[in-house]
Amino acid sequence: MPSISRKGQSMPESPIRKLVPFAENAKKKGVKVIHLNIGQPDIKTPKVALDAVKNNTLEVLEYSRTEGSDTYREKLAGYYEKQGVHINASEIIVTTGGSEALAFALGTVTDMGDEIIIPEPFYANYNGFATANGVKVVPVVSGIETNFALPPIEAFEKAIGPKTKAILICNPGNPTGYLYSKEEIEQLAALVKKHDLYLIADEVYREFTYEGKKHHSILQEKGLEQHAIVVDSVSKRYSMCGARIGCLISQNKMVIKTAMKFAQARLSPPTFALIASEAALDTPQSYFDDVIEEYVERRDLLLDALKEIEGIKVAKPQGAFYCIAELPIADADDFAQWLLESFQLDGETVMVAPAAGFYATPGLGKNQIRIAYVLEKEQLVKAVTILKEALKVYKKS
Amino acid sequence: MPSISRKGQSMPESPIRKLVPFAENAKKKGVKVIHLNIGQPDIKTPKVALDAVKNNTLEVLEYSRTEGSDTYREKLAGYYEKQGVHINASEIIVTTGGSEALAFALGTVTDMGDEIIIPEPFYANYNGFATANGVKVVPVVSGIETNFALPPIEAFEKAIGPKTKAILICNPGNPTGYLYSKEEIEQLAALVKKHDLYLIADEVYREFTYEGKKHHSILQEKGLEQHAIVVDSVSKRYSMCGARIGCLISQNKMVIKTAMKFAQARLSPPTFALIASEAALDTPQSYFDDVIEEYVERRDLLLDALKEIEGIKVAKPQGAFYCIAELPIADADDFAQWLLESFQLDGETVMVAPAAGFYATPGLGKNQIRIAYVLEKEQLVKAVTILKEALKVYKKS
Ligand SMILES: Cc1ncc(COP(=O)(O)O)c(C=O)c1O
Ligand SMILES: Cc1ncc(COP(=O)(O)O)c(C=O)c1O
Repeated sequence: MPSISRKGQSMPESPIRKLVPFAENAKKKGVKVIHLNIGQPDIKTPKVALDAVKNNTLEVLEYSRTEGSDTYREKLAGYYEKQGVHINASEIIVTTGGSEALAFALGTVTDMGDEIIIPEPFYANYNGFATANGVKVVPVVSGIETNFALPPIEAFEKAIGPKTKAILICNPGNPTGYLYSKEEIEQLAALVKKHDLYLIADEVYREFTYEGKKHHSILQEKGLEQHAIVVDSVSKRYSMCGARIGCLISQNKMVIKTAMKFAQARLSPPTFALIASEAALDTPQSYFDDVIEEYVERRDLLLDALKEIEGIKVAKPQGAFYCIAELPIADADDFAQWLLESFQLDGETVMVAPAAGFYATPGLGKNQIRIAYVLEKEQLVKAVTILKEALKVYKKS
Repeated sequence: MPSISRKGQSMPESPIRKLVPFAENAKKKGVKVIHLNIGQPDIKTPKVALDAVKNNTLEVLEYSRTEGSDTYREKLAGYYEKQGVHINASEIIVTTGGSEALAFALGTVTDMGDEIIIPEPFYANYNGFATANGVKVVPVVSGIETNFALPPIEAFEKAIGPKTKAILICNPGNPTGYLYSKEEIEQLAALVKKHDLYLIADEVYREFTYEGKKHHSILQEKGLEQHAIVVDSVSKRYSMCGARIGCLISQNKMVIKTAMKFAQARLSPPTFALIASEAALDTPQSYFDDVIEEYVERRDLLLDALKEIEGIKVAKPQGAFYCIAELPIADADDFAQWLLESFQLDGETVMVAPAAGFYATPGLGKNQIRIAYVLEKEQLVKAVTILKEALKVYKKS
């Protein structure tokens, strides 16, 4: 039998995937599973976006332009302008989700054997894109005590070696919910300039910041033009994850020119989704206000409920819609599986994401879980009650 | 300034791309450009597919399943069954275009420094996917004299080395229009079994075969189960290139398991496009009959018209909608640019794809062009007239 590539063999599996069969089994046994594990919002997609697709009059569903149409990219530049980010349409490549923008960014700046530095815990699929490119992830650990703030800049400096090509951050963070301050971004900016590295910022949650805190994009940093690469997406912003539209932004012309060659090979982003994404730019501000209000309420409710659990530690998220909780247990993988296999409260249980999958350093995060608050409040409260009762039973078992 | 990856630097640009500014200039000067260079059919997308999207009732545009829904994959397996290809839904991963299936296939079977053998001329983006994976393309030349039939199997055998992981074919071929016979496929099957290689077949044009000739899929080869990987797509089949839906098919469980890990990293294929693709499976046979009839008429008309050109050689296509013509000139790149820059007949000119970009061996195909017959007949005839007149002038210039 012909062999699978070494690269293929070392591709990581999604950390949640192992639990899926247990969740399916629980459902088969008639147990209702409340999903705290997924980043798929329940928020409605803006009507203006859905309607644009329903009312399309295409007769031939043609390839769109490799980099996205001029009109869409110009409107998109207008969106960023309103956020205080000054970029041109020509500095944007429209991609198939933020996922593809991540793939293009890594392809553009790294070769096999290179290293990228990422503060951990981080979005687990960074591992997949790194492995696919033969790139080593060098983690710099952030801690729950600081709400997962930027680790001391010296820790990054220590991690830099001759193979380092970029620092990758997620702001606001999945799974941490941490929103980097202007000062933190400035520290990183100075560091990448000093060492001539790229700074890649995954800003797909840029719209989700709380308590009036403002998102500070790396594109707002003066002097960082040749270093900054932003990954963005419509997935979470408009609750249209299924569209698969994102973008890569850079003012470095060689980065755009090179990423374009990767883009040309795959021809174009999906046409219907582009129609939806362009229309979504007309979503009224009231939509975002309502969504943010809803997430803040959910977050507050969730944090209050979690605090009632004995021995728990929770990082307070200021952005995105995830939070990490440290539980009074030794092994969250085992606990998560046990919840699905052996526990129920009035016929219900919960599925959580064990946090170890978000760390690159072995052993870290073993007693942590990630909770996504993309469920209605009533469900969230019920889920936390189940967690609380489950922990009482689990610790004895 | 931080550096671009070596990989990024060596990514090829689309061979047509260089000509685009010249085409734009011609249009600015008021010259109408007839495009013989693109593979975007003008055929209408089946109404059943477009209507399904228009009538969708989604309120939240959610991620779809990483591998595509069970219902879609089961219906798809039914489609193949009707074509004499027996596969299960679990042997299919739905991808974002055939392009992504190609990327997953290469990621699954190759590592940096490996080699894949491809008969040339071939679809130019194979170069891009190979370069992105650090893989070397080893071409085996096929010739216009045989209509680009499979080169002697000894030529493949000679090209096999310790780094060879797969043979990649396109059937029917872009840019050749050649349809491999059952016997040719059997020769390749025996060879990959002997040397324990993968046989990757890009069958995105499988539906487009002429004169009652039948497409023979590598999935129909007994004993090839562990070696065969098929790349397919809805793009050309239903004239819905903008959907961005394709699939990777293999009966080798390790291939599917590994490709799934690449698929998980990018989350899911586009949801609207999946709705269209699932509905498209209900396209009546009459649609295909009409489309095939139209393409046959166009092909015949094109070939007849081309034959009137002195000194031309044309390969007769039995599938897809491309053909390669050898012109009585030295440099088709120069000719194609000249057509756009310096020639017009009654205010019109043509854009052709120089064929050198479809060859990996330097110097080959320099006097050849690829013509896509995806235009209405009247336009096709006019385009060939322009070519004919242009050649008379060009040769003197
Ligand atoms: C941090 C982060 N980046 C990128 C993505 C990719 O999203 P998409 O490809 O849907 O834009 C996600 C999705 O969950 C994410 O959480
Ligand atoms: C031979 C061949 N393979 C694959 C593709 C990729 O098509 P898509 O990604 O639209 O499915 C094309 C598109 O032109 C092609 O000609």
